[in-house]
Amino acid sequence: MNYWKRLLIGAPIHTKQLSEEKLTKKKALAIFSSDALSSVAYATEEILLVLVLIGTQALMYSIPIAFAIMLLLLIVTLSYRQIIHSFPSGGGAYIVAREHIGRNTSLTAGAALMIDYVLTVAVSICSGVAALLSAFPALLPYRVELAVILVIVLMIINLRGIRESANIFAFPTYIFVASIIIMIGFGIWKLQAGNWHHLAVPYHAEHFSLFSSFGTTFLLLRAFASGCSALTGVEAISNGVPAFREPSSKNAVITMFWMSFLLGTMFLGITFLANGFGVEPKENVTVVSQIANHVFGYGFFYYFIQIFTMLILFLAANTAFAGFPQLVSIIAQDGYLPRNLTKRGDRLVFSNGIIFLSVLAILLIIIFQGETHALVPLYAVGVFLSFTIAQYGLIKYFLERKSQQKVWSRIIVVGIGMIITGIVTIITAVAKFQSGAWMVVVAIPCMVLLFHKIHRHYSDLASQLSLQGQDPKQMVKVSPSKVIIPISSVSRVAINSIGYAKSISNDVVALTVYFDEKQKERAEKKWKELGLDIPLVTVHSPYRSLLMPLLQYIDALEESERGKYITVLIPQFFVKKWWHIFLHNQTAFLLRAMLLWRKDIVVSTIPYHLRK
Amino acid sequence: MNYWKRLLIGAPIHTKQLSEEKLTKKKALAIFSSDALSSVAYATEEILLVLVLIGTQALMYSIPIAFAIMLLLLIVTLSYRQIIHSFPSGGGAYIVAREHIGRNTSLTAGAALMIDYVLTVAVSICSGVAALLSAFPALLPYRVELAVILVIVLMIINLRGIRESANIFAFPTYIFVASIIIMIGFGIWKLQAGNWHHLAVPYHAEHFSLFSSFGTTFLLLRAFASGCSALTGVEAISNGVPAFREPSSKNAVITMFWMSFLLGTMFLGITFLANGFGVEPKENVTVVSQIANHVFGYGFFYYFIQIFTMLILFLAANTAFAGFPQLVSIIAQDGYLPRNLTKRGDRLVFSNGIIFLSVLAILLIIIFQGETHALVPLYAVGVFLSFTIAQYGLIKYFLERKSQQKVWSRIIVVGIGMIITGIVTIITAVAKFQSGAWMVVVAIPCMVLLFHKIHRHYSDLASQLSLQGQDPKQMVKVSPSKVIIPISSVSRVAINSIGYAKSISNDVVALTVYFDEKQKERAEKKWKELGLDIPLVTVHSPYRSLLMPLLQYIDALEESERGKYITVLIPQFFVKKWWHIFLHNQTAFLLRAMLLWRKDIVVSTIPYHLRK
Repeated sequence: MNYWKRLLIGAPIHTKQLSEEKLTKKKALAIFSSDALSSVAYATEEILLVLVLIGTQALMYSIPIAFAIMLLLLIVTLSYRQIIHSFPSGGGAYIVAREHIGRNTSLTAGAALMIDYVLTVAVSICSGVAALLSAFPALLPYRVELAVILVIVLMIINLRGIRESANIFAFPTYIFVASIIIMIGFGIWKLQAGNWHHLAVPYHAEHFSLFSSFGTTFLLLRAFASGCSALTGVEAISNGVPAFREPSSKNAVITMFWMSFLLGTMFLGITFLANGFGVEPKENVTVVSQIANHVFGYGFFYYFIQIFTMLILFLAANTAFAGFPQLVSIIAQDGYLPRNLTKRGDRLVFSNGIIFLSVLAILLIIIFQGETHALVPLYAVGVFLSFTIAQYGLIKYFLERKSQQKVWSRIIVVGIGMIITGIVTIITAVAKFQSGAWMVVVAIPCMVLLFHKIHRHYSDLASQLSLQGQDPKQMVKVSPSKVIIPISSVSRVAINSIGYAKSISNDVVALTVYFDEKQKERAEKKWKELGLDIPLVTVHSPYRSLLMPLLQYIDALEESERGKYITVLIPQFFVKKWWHIFLHNQTAFLLRAMLLWRKDIVVSTIPYHLRK
Repeated sequence: MNYWKRLLIGAPIHTKQLSEEKLTKKKALAIFSSDALSSVAYATEEILLVLVLIGTQALMYSIPIAFAIMLLLLIVTLSYRQIIHSFPSGGGAYIVAREHIGRNTSLTAGAALMIDYVLTVAVSICSGVAALLSAFPALLPYRVELAVILVIVLMIINLRGIRESANIFAFPTYIFVASIIIMIGFGIWKLQAGNWHHLAVPYHAEHFSLFSSFGTTFLLLRAFASGCSALTGVEAISNGVPAFREPSSKNAVITMFWMSFLLGTMFLGITFLANGFGVEPKENVTVVSQIANHVFGYGFFYYFIQIFTMLILFLAANTAFAGFPQLVSIIAQDGYLPRNLTKRGDRLVFSNGIIFLSVLAILLIIIFQGETHALVPLYAVGVFLSFTIAQYGLIKYFLERKSQQKVWSRIIVVGIGMIITGIVTIITAVAKFQSGAWMVVVAIPCMVLLFHKIHRHYSDLASQLSLQGQDPKQMVKVSPSKVIIPISSVSRVAINSIGYAKSISNDVVALTVYFDEKQKERAEKKWKELGLDIPLVTVHSPYRSLLMPLLQYIDALEESERGKYITVLIPQFFVKKWWHIFLHNQTAFLLRAMLLWRKDIVVSTIPYHLRK
């Protein structure tokens, strides 16, 4: 067990190594930005998938939509620059709201972020598998299995620890970015060389009339909302500031700007090429795969792009493995999630958070059968909700700082950001409500309720366990306990247990169950012969059960000795070979299990190890 | 839990009701004979399945083979009459061999009988399902599922107790016998009325020349061996004599003769009709189903026959539920199987034996995918082996009775039986060796080995637990135990536990694990403020594990306090709502689980129940 654990996740790491585990900008970009960067693999496709419902001619609207989304990205990046500078200790929307808005708002942000981290893993892994399946259609029947295995691999890598993750992940991120940019460059060159057939189609009047219909306007909004999935992950850096090398805020902001720039370039480029080559969304072949095919044919570079797309999406899922455990550990520290989530495992990572995330993501993948398109509608609502909350919090923070000069220019920047992201939140929730966003709309308040229930339990617990107003010296004066020893026969095991019992109490009783009178007489005779000063109580069992009469006797005793502890000493012998356990009835185990829940019963197990 | 148990198997029955649970001849015939009687549902088919390998013309050899098997039945019945009279206390081959031959022979018989009981359940259920599927081919995809469900139903019925079983089962047995006899009568009448086409084919010379080839001779022997499955279950009555009403031996013999007579009549009749109507074995439609179709068409009587065939086979499986638990309880009483198998459950039946049988039968059904033909080759070897052993034992018994007159006529009857069944054992093992009998040939010696290993364990145990040569009064002088209390914080739970610990020992130590120096100082300061006269031991955990440092400390203490008991008192608090357990780490449970296996550690759990 332990051997396998070590093989999989490595030797334990000493606590004092904690501070060494910090990230350079380059590594942090790989770790925290791959989510945002990788969304270029599916964001354009999600836009086209909605537009194609209007008609093939409407696909060209993807270009203005992409520009709108890039504008949104710029606004969010500028806002988040203020957030990183103002709140360098990390935690993002959750912490900002906790400090400057209120409990419920911060918990709402926390719930939204948790949902989005889980979706990041599920969507990225499913999209990565889709990239792989575009290149290798023979693997199509194993979509779900592949996705689940990838999540498990990610889990193991992350349980090994954050620095090793960075090393594993830095390289492919940069290869991906480079190869996509090369693909865009080659693509544009190819289009100029004469393949520019699609965008040349003139804008006919009927296209403009599209807006006249409510249905198509709604579909355009849905296309925009789907494209907004490109922005998920932008907040990851602001949550992860403490993981950066000093000066951590400055490094984080620089990293975020680089990320936004790369994201914008790639997203616009891919959307542009999709239109240039006249790509339409297809089942089982991704849009990026089609573009790569147009640019490079089915040669080496095509497979190279597909594989690195899959790798970057795998890294994107990894973003959540960096962010989610940190977020839940903060929420848990506040007492709104199980305390276990605050504990660093023996590799210094929040192991429980990592496992928790993996289990949730695997569940989602199985439920949605590994289909990216089915998962995307759930995405983005939570992200934009938390963007909005974070910016609202920052505005309140600026307004609160009475002593200092209020920086109105900053407030205006963040205010515009807040209003825009607020509107986008509503658009994503409404436009994708039917196709899945309702689940998120339902889940968030349920989670907030659960957070409160957990918090209530911990505060109840604290008050019940507190020594406030108690005198410990009085409390430890406990009257001696009665000891009961259930025995089945007069054997060495029984005598052994009696010896121990006599050493802890003067009030010891042996207890035996008999099925018929003959048995009783025999037991009493044998007991007399022993000549011990311990009474033997015999209990009759008309229905041949051993446990029930014992429990009934103990019940009665509990009643008469109310307020005192009763010790039940259970002799247990341990066999030498594993299969011998089938040769003994496990009454001792059962009895212990049933007594553990009683109020005033101390259950003691005294072992007797057989020599052979 | 208890509610469902009561609903399924009924209220517990008082021990004194044991003697009332006795069977009349009519009910006993239903319980113990359905195995033998029901084999007419498949025995003819198994013969034809082998003969058809020679050629369609060879099918007519089923008639002389059936006569040979009936002769064998007569011989076995006459032999077993002597066995019942000589050994009225039941147990059959196992007990006879134990008393009069030797330990290994009796264990061999026991193993053979156990295997055959399990096969009785598997074969009968699969054959019953086949009868059902012949009439309702829509159920074909659910062959295995249906078979498994039927075994579970049988298990529940038998857990309810033997008398109720008899009531449930008596009625369909008699209906089955009557309907098969009516079918045979109608069939013969129909054949005489002009449909007698098949048997009219003259015996050509080439058929006789079949015997000239070794291959066909071997196949004829295999056909005979397959048909011998008709005799399985004949011994059930001799094992179940004590369940009969007084005079039990006489009643058992009468019942057995009736059973043999009915079995012979039906088996010959069905084999005769199969030839008369020219029936050939088909996949998914049984031979009996084909005959019933020839006689009655697809009308009401056809379905009636199919359903009652299924019911009798269900009862046949039930035979094993009456015999197997009784057999294993006797073997367990001798110390060769787990003692648990000797215990009567709260409905007075050997519940563990019943469950054991069900599990084994379900495993067989799943492994062999519910195919009767795949299971039959394993069958019969064990039965004939035990027949032979039982008769050998009876002969030795007769020869041992020096004082009384030796009844040579009886010895000759039984001797002939023994020689014939011995030969048949070898024929079944050899002729069906490749198609599955080898498994039984391998399993029997393995089981005998296991029996011995179990026996060895129990006798080792007895000698280790014996008080022979020991002075109990000296043994109970045990020096006081050191008590260790692992605590995580200074809370009411901890103080509570310390109070109890002080009441059982003067040597109490509190133990806490710290991750860094600050934690240690804080804990030590708090402890001093308490002002208790108990030392606090602090243990450092560099890798943030709670369990490992605790276990290491206890290891070291175990070394220094060798020979004395160390009590580890584990405070455990119990939450009010089930989901609260996720909010606490289960260190106490884990610690207890890991300490339970240590030699000199008494593990005591002291409960602290939360009020809310």
